[in-house]
Amino acid sequence: MQHFDSDYMEGAHPRIMRRLLETNMEKTPGYGLDGYCEEAKAKIRRACGSPDAEVYFMVGGTQTNSTVIDALLRNYEGVIAADTGHISVHEAGAIESCGHKVLALPGRDGKIAADDAEHYIATFLKDGNREHMVAPGMVYISHPTEYGTLYTRSELEALSGVCRRYGIPLYLDGARLGYGLAAMGTDVTLETIAAACDAFYIGGTKVGALFGEAVVTRRGLIPHFFTIIKQHGALLAKGRLLGIQFDELFTDDLYTEISRHAIKMAEKLRVAFAERGYRFHIQSPTNQIFIILDNEKMAELAKNVSFSFWETADENHTVVRIATSWATREEDVDALIEML
Amino acid sequence: MQHFDSDYMEGAHPRIMRRLLETNMEKTPGYGLDGYCEEAKAKIRRACGSPDAEVYFMVGGTQTNSTVIDALLRNYEGVIAADTGHISVHEAGAIESCGHKVLALPGRDGKIAADDAEHYIATFLKDGNREHMVAPGMVYISHPTEYGTLYTRSELEALSGVCRRYGIPLYLDGARLGYGLAAMGTDVTLETIAAACDAFYIGGTKVGALFGEAVVTRRGLIPHFFTIIKQHGALLAKGRLLGIQFDELFTDDLYTEISRHAIKMAEKLRVAFAERGYRFHIQSPTNQIFIILDNEKMAELAKNVSFSFWETADENHTVVRIATSWATREEDVDALIEML
Amino acid sequence: MQHFDSDYMEGAHPRIMRRLLETNMEKTPGYGLDGYCEEAKAKIRRACGSPDAEVYFMVGGTQTNSTVIDALLRNYEGVIAADTGHISVHEAGAIESCGHKVLALPGRDGKIAADDAEHYIATFLKDGNREHMVAPGMVYISHPTEYGTLYTRSELEALSGVCRRYGIPLYLDGARLGYGLAAMGTDVTLETIAAACDAFYIGGTKVGALFGEAVVTRRGLIPHFFTIIKQHGALLAKGRLLGIQFDELFTDDLYTEISRHAIKMAEKLRVAFAERGYRFHIQSPTNQIFIILDNEKMAELAKNVSFSFWETADENHTVVRIATSWATREEDVDALIEML
Amino acid sequence: MQHFDSDYMEGAHPRIMRRLLETNMEKTPGYGLDGYCEEAKAKIRRACGSPDAEVYFMVGGTQTNSTVIDALLRNYEGVIAADTGHISVHEAGAIESCGHKVLALPGRDGKIAADDAEHYIATFLKDGNREHMVAPGMVYISHPTEYGTLYTRSELEALSGVCRRYGIPLYLDGARLGYGLAAMGTDVTLETIAAACDAFYIGGTKVGALFGEAVVTRRGLIPHFFTIIKQHGALLAKGRLLGIQFDELFTDDLYTEISRHAIKMAEKLRVAFAERGYRFHIQSPTNQIFIILDNEKMAELAKNVSFSFWETADENHTVVRIATSWATREEDVDALIEML
Repeated sequence: MQHFDSDYMEGAHPRIMRRLLETNMEKTPGYGLDGYCEEAKAKIRRACGSPDAEVYFMVGGTQTNSTVIDALLRNYEGVIAADTGHISVHEAGAIESCGHKVLALPGRDGKIAADDAEHYIATFLKDGNREHMVAPGMVYISHPTEYGTLYTRSELEALSGVCRRYGIPLYLDGARLGYGLAAMGTDVTLETIAAACDAFYIGGTKVGALFGEAVVTRRGLIPHFFTIIKQHGALLAKGRLLGIQFDELFTDDLYTEISRHAIKMAEKLRVAFAERGYRFHIQSPTNQIFIILDNEKMAELAKNVSFSFWETADENHTVVRIATSWATREEDVDALIEML
Repeated sequence: MQHFDSDYMEGAHPRIMRRLLETNMEKTPGYGLDGYCEEAKAKIRRACGSPDAEVYFMVGGTQTNSTVIDALLRNYEGVIAADTGHISVHEAGAIESCGHKVLALPGRDGKIAADDAEHYIATFLKDGNREHMVAPGMVYISHPTEYGTLYTRSELEALSGVCRRYGIPLYLDGARLGYGLAAMGTDVTLETIAAACDAFYIGGTKVGALFGEAVVTRRGLIPHFFTIIKQHGALLAKGRLLGIQFDELFTDDLYTEISRHAIKMAEKLRVAFAERGYRFHIQSPTNQIFIILDNEKMAELAKNVSFSFWETADENHTVVRIATSWATREEDVDALIEML
Repeated sequence: MQHFDSDYMEGAHPRIMRRLLETNMEKTPGYGLDGYCEEAKAKIRRACGSPDAEVYFMVGGTQTNSTVIDALLRNYEGVIAADTGHISVHEAGAIESCGHKVLALPGRDGKIAADDAEHYIATFLKDGNREHMVAPGMVYISHPTEYGTLYTRSELEALSGVCRRYGIPLYLDGARLGYGLAAMGTDVTLETIAAACDAFYIGGTKVGALFGEAVVTRRGLIPHFFTIIKQHGALLAKGRLLGIQFDELFTDDLYTEISRHAIKMAEKLRVAFAERGYRFHIQSPTNQIFIILDNEKMAELAKNVSFSFWETADENHTVVRIATSWATREEDVDALIEML
Repeated sequence: MQHFDSDYMEGAHPRIMRRLLETNMEKTPGYGLDGYCEEAKAKIRRACGSPDAEVYFMVGGTQTNSTVIDALLRNYEGVIAADTGHISVHEAGAIESCGHKVLALPGRDGKIAADDAEHYIATFLKDGNREHMVAPGMVYISHPTEYGTLYTRSELEALSGVCRRYGIPLYLDGARLGYGLAAMGTDVTLETIAAACDAFYIGGTKVGALFGEAVVTRRGLIPHFFTIIKQHGALLAKGRLLGIQFDELFTDDLYTEISRHAIKMAEKLRVAFAERGYRFHIQSPTNQIFIILDNEKMAELAKNVSFSFWETADENHTVVRIATSWATREEDVDALIEML
């Protein structure tokens, strides 16, 4: 049985496991006040080309999104997001449970167009009833998106421009950031993102770590963030576990290297699918592949390979997702190709 | 200058003012524990044909919606509403500020079709990721809707059937309920609504009262609602003010009578608009009229009559709303017709 | 039967009722954007000696407290209050339902001593674990307190000094403010309060109005307060009802005059109680009188007069509260004295 | 330098690290739907003598407390806790941020006496104003408490009896549960706790795990808990990491064994402190020792050993906390004793 369900089926990259083991019996202060966290933050700042950025570590994506968004918004503000955005659909109402409305814009293959965001904000500002409405207080995007699509550098900069023009922060959910940065053809780098966004997070959980997301913000963006993190139940007691993992991920470019591997594996699969005439639901250059299968073929494949149900295409067809990751072995990719 | 901006521009019906004056120096216990509230509740139960219903009074619409909805939902649940619904757009995020997502369905002239609701719920229940999503925990509709449209009896019963099949309450926002019940051609009565809905409110603020909304629920639907109302800042100290007003509104059918007057005035206007070739944005049989004006005509009219901006139709045209009410004088209607 | 249960048993002062009646059929815009509200705000600013103050109207006390406090605090902050404060005990958790902790200090007859507040804040700031704790973000006091006690001018100024030293707002709940200002021996005026507090409210519900509280804040203290009020369900559609009432209360000093009457009535009762050897639970110079009754006497009195149970003193004695108000008739006071 | 600051300074017990390493490259479904979690749950049920119990895993203590408490309470309810309880003081207002009041009772060395809880609830139920107050909806205790004290079996059963009499759940925070169960002289076992409490958690973070808390509840106590956990940002993507750790902790009684070691180390220190005439701030039979040091001695010790500041005793004395753990080496204990 081959497993291509998702990019968080294994533990951590062996180098991370080794570091965790090596440091296991050291004694450090809790809550991220240790040297490993400091070191990891320094490396992340360097990788972002942002010597002034602030870096925080949290455990998971939903937690990170709701903590950052709740920290950035005032009570009367909401967050603009694509209607397909993770916070719009698949976080069980975490944003609303903090009191904030998700202002959903129709996504374009999972992305928000700068023009759409600007139009929404400008329309709001001209609405005679705007004081009875939720003010757009920030923009949330994911990169890669939930559909594996990527912003171009100019799209990102356009969105950033809109946000700055209206004085609201741009926040990027980078749960799969590594795979986006390693995708072929992208002109977006970590520096691009750090320059365009007021806050973003570098996903660890899906890119080599046991768990962990590194939030990067403009200096001073969120006063008292430590306490806010604690209040959200998002402060890890043994915070160094996050520091050690990100320290390793940002040593000798491991984060990039393992992301590239996942992309290479995905490319091999994409080519194989295309050659065999499979239809793609959406073109994604990342580690996610969305294919439309007829239901019989799907049932047959499912005997030997597991993947994610994505959505119903029509009565006889289904969209499924195949995901590679830092851990995908080429022999498993080849085995899957055999079955097609 | 004529004013047709909204249906809450005056104070209260003279009969209500007289009752408030007559009772002004009486001493009663606070918080709605007085005899006037009891009497009003009894009359409302009778009017609803629901001897077992529970009745509560609150001051305003947003307050009522957010208190009832927060009371009905568990934390992991959201409320289905039309995307044009008052709670979706014009309550400043009150529902989200209580922690709940508004699950917006594309409205059909402001209404939710039973099929759309059923499809949404059924799709949710079949979604493999539903445990990561906000569960639909109730349905919110308004009657009349924000566009002045009305459900038919069978539409209401179909929605009610869907809700019962899935075990979630149906709640109706009746901010302008009187005008809906008095509209020509409707087959919906207060009894229909009481039978179809688990909870609804009879709007007083826009239909003759100084302020006040009467919430009617199935017996036992919301335990500890008194405390929940208090927690939401929605418990009026001198609760009898609500009781007295609703007692009067439900004495000798005053609520119906004054609602009919508003409809009669609106009909007269509708006929006049139609005869003069004005285009309607939407057909509403209630006290609200939505007309498409060319911008020059709008500017000219605006010199002598005030109305509500509704939305931009195109570069040269605007949708405006003209509202009558229990207080609209026929001479003012005639004066407006003169100007057309 | 005589009723001395509370100070909100009647409707409104006859002058207010007359104004409501006179203006009843006028048409004005909603939500407090009318001329009466403007006029009332101007008069309140003048009475406060604060030409720059901002004034907002809400309907009731719990609503006002939770809306103001939620608007003033950031999510990681709590509000310091006396353990006997209204928000600490009798608002059904309204503050917590907005996400904020009430940081209860042991009250001194219902008051917070400046030293206690300073000690609390200073201790917090020195606590090595303070980042894991709720930061004191404002101070809430009531004047008169729930026990009918009053701050002196110097006590108020001392508290104000503490708040300014630590950069947090001081907010005063004036549900019964008129009765505090009219009390004998007080050196606190409306100007004193406006100078000492960053925000406070002038209670109308218990002092002559049908309902209504006027919030006064330093200019610019709460951006977007209109929307916040709406979100809290606290925006009255026919906002002019609040404007008209406060306009009348601040015309020819009506607010002061009717407050003085209540105090005069309370004084007469206090003297009568004292002369007859009744014991006072607490010395209050306001419209509230707290007496310790033996339970037999209480049962006997209760046949002819209603009052509030306050608390159990011991097995055989009970503390009860007798309240006068702007509406108390001297003949009823005399009748009560007869019974003692 | 010796470190006795806390019981979460190291990573995980070597047996846990080995299991994590062995299983690292296995592929499993996420979110705790894997076989390791199933196995761990079965072992925990057995250890609790509760074949019907439900078991859930979360990452940290504050997260667990706020998720469980928010799930158990209705909006109008609060949680009774000792004023020194972790949720009362050191969780940054996490409970309030979910909308609930912590109803703080004066603790008795960190514990709540059954009589105090009963008195609080009974007083509430008799209070004429109770509908304006926060209803006690559950009881929170910690065992060991924040002061290292322990409930006896009969104290626990008495509290449990009170809760059952009033129909509210009893919830126990077992962040350091292992150290409580291993303490000398205790008559409380895991079975006792499972029988007395409706919900509790077995702390892993401080007792051998990298992180993780296992929540045990009566079957059916919290419907839809998976979604609630997700909404709180508390659902770990690679849920098996929790399953593997707890599986190992409950294999061959590892949890008990390593807890006993911590207690043995603490006992050795306690005897040494006592013999040298040190004063104890509180008698704790667990892994925490609270000693009163004069400030000079403290400064001297601090050169070679780190410990926690607890509180100021008086001008010249300070209470400090010394904590042992599963990882404490006897040679370090001896080294500390040398310094005394």
